[in-house]
Amino acid sequence: MRFATLKNGTLDGRLVIVSSTGLHAVDAQPIAPNLLTALQDWDTVEPHLRRLADALESGSAPGIFAFDPTACSAPLPRSPQWLDASAFLNHGRLMERAFNTPPIPHFDTIPVMYQGASDDFLGPHEDVPLPAEGDGIDFEGEFGVICGPVPMAVTPQAALGCVRLIVQINDWSLRALGPHEMKTGFGFLQAKPSTSFAPLAVTPDELGDAWRDGRVQMRLHVESNGQWFGHPHGGEMNFDFGQLIAHAARTRRLSAGTIVGSGTVSNQARDAGSACLAERRVIEILDEGAPKTPFMRFGDRVRMQARWPDGRSGPFGVVDQRVVAAIPEVR
Amino acid sequence: MRFATLKNGTLDGRLVIVSSTGLHAVDAQPIAPNLLTALQDWDTVEPHLRRLADALESGSAPGIFAFDPTACSAPLPRSPQWLDASAFLNHGRLMERAFNTPPIPHFDTIPVMYQGASDDFLGPHEDVPLPAEGDGIDFEGEFGVICGPVPMAVTPQAALGCVRLIVQINDWSLRALGPHEMKTGFGFLQAKPSTSFAPLAVTPDELGDAWRDGRVQMRLHVESNGQWFGHPHGGEMNFDFGQLIAHAARTRRLSAGTIVGSGTVSNQARDAGSACLAERRVIEILDEGAPKTPFMRFGDRVRMQARWPDGRSGPFGVVDQRVVAAIPEVR
Repeated sequence: MRFATLKNGTLDGRLVIVSSTGLHAVDAQPIAPNLLTALQDWDTVEPHLRRLADALESGSAPGIFAFDPTACSAPLPRSPQWLDASAFLNHGRLMERAFNTPPIPHFDTIPVMYQGASDDFLGPHEDVPLPAEGDGIDFEGEFGVICGPVPMAVTPQAALGCVRLIVQINDWSLRALGPHEMKTGFGFLQAKPSTSFAPLAVTPDELGDAWRDGRVQMRLHVESNGQWFGHPHGGEMNFDFGQLIAHAARTRRLSAGTIVGSGTVSNQARDAGSACLAERRVIEILDEGAPKTPFMRFGDRVRMQARWPDGRSGPFGVVDQRVVAAIPEVR
Repeated sequence: MRFATLKNGTLDGRLVIVSSTGLHAVDAQPIAPNLLTALQDWDTVEPHLRRLADALESGSAPGIFAFDPTACSAPLPRSPQWLDASAFLNHGRLMERAFNTPPIPHFDTIPVMYQGASDDFLGPHEDVPLPAEGDGIDFEGEFGVICGPVPMAVTPQAALGCVRLIVQINDWSLRALGPHEMKTGFGFLQAKPSTSFAPLAVTPDELGDAWRDGRVQMRLHVESNGQWFGHPHGGEMNFDFGQLIAHAARTRRLSAGTIVGSGTVSNQARDAGSACLAERRVIEILDEGAPKTPFMRFGDRVRMQARWPDGRSGPFGVVDQRVVAAIPEVR
């Protein structure tokens, strides 16, 4: 099943099921008013949602309408928790050089993960308002999972069974603010403004073989201002999502709807390019002595889309966003 | 006004207004089903809540009942964001010695703050299930504020005007896990299990002169297993709550209901004692060469209560909790 959330003026939006072609949708509200309530009562509503999805595919569902991804919010406009790892060690090691921070202890055996704000996610085509170009505006292409309820101290294997949906994420980052926040030891806060999501959250079966070993086995194609920027492969993740969820739940339970992210998708092969500006900049420093690629200016765009191994558009849809100057409401 | 939330099987509970004596309450559900919705629509509902509170004080409200703090959840059982600072520099400097971590840069000019989980808060008398005594179980007595909507890039002065309610917090911490998480730079995650709250969230006017300079000017009395442990004063906070909220909102807006904490209340005067075990332990190390006070074992209790300057019980009520072994649900 492929789910999207249309804006309707409520905090959680309106749940729709989207066809496998991505062209049509049907209202899921008679079954669950929004995706968050569906996740909270998944075992009960899932069979009903499946029947509706089947009826959408066969064209027999009443009220089928044309699906418009630009009308979407994030699949979950707000979630109970948003926990983002850095599970592609290649990215983390390059970022240590970019930030000039000391090596993270046990980086290859214990996942690192920060708790992000989860109350105000952005949709795939929404402008991204930010206060200052000087903050080092950067995108980060990621994959993530949305969980059902996760008990405290779950094993990695059992944690994988808690995955309900898979998503594609743009984790906006402000690079000028990150190094100081890392040095405090308290983690990212100002460096992580509202996170954005591709329109479709999909059940693992939608990925077929591309959901394997607890990883999304697809390339994430990234374009910066219309130019190819990278297409790193999600299979190179050094921890699987079961390990990441178990790490997050070591001392507390996670409520249904909790989102766990992979961190920036990153490959050792240089020709895969990058899924964030900071990574390309540090490669430029290493190769050429100085960064050449600037951070984003207001008006700049980024586009991200996972693709199937044969190059077809992936199941999550497209993130296509522009950064804009935030208009101060109160000063 | 003094608000509490009674458990009723929903995620957000049932909102009640509590009398100034703390003995009586009245159902606020006809005005707002729960505290979160009240905060989301504060300007509309606040006058109605005030009229009901006045009728409760005069005894004229229908349906007045005896208030039972042990039936309470946290005032907000879940909130959009939970952001906890370390605004008592005396505590932070002692913790650097306890954790043997390097000095935090700009510690006295830029607040430090971590993003905590906000989906599963504990009530004032709930047992605290934790997975292992070896994790270094500790309490942390704090004050905090609950905000209305906060715009991005708000000034500290305007941020103070966003304060809707004041709360008293027990920020559970696992000290064996904290130093590693600080060294990763990604901040606390496993080291911060579910946070607990005193039963009453109160409007700033309830504090009178004790809400001054953006700080709670009261002592927080802490007892560990029935023994005096400390009574540090909230006025010694080195940043005010306006500065803390503005720090949190520098690059993103905060949704109504966001909670911002002070960090452990801590005074330079040694005879004020401490509001967490780790702080006393590092003082023992400094004074006597080794820590004597152990971290908590399963069955141990902590009690916290703010008091008015004349020693009377403060407006937030009492946190009185016991730590227990978490029963594994899935392994």
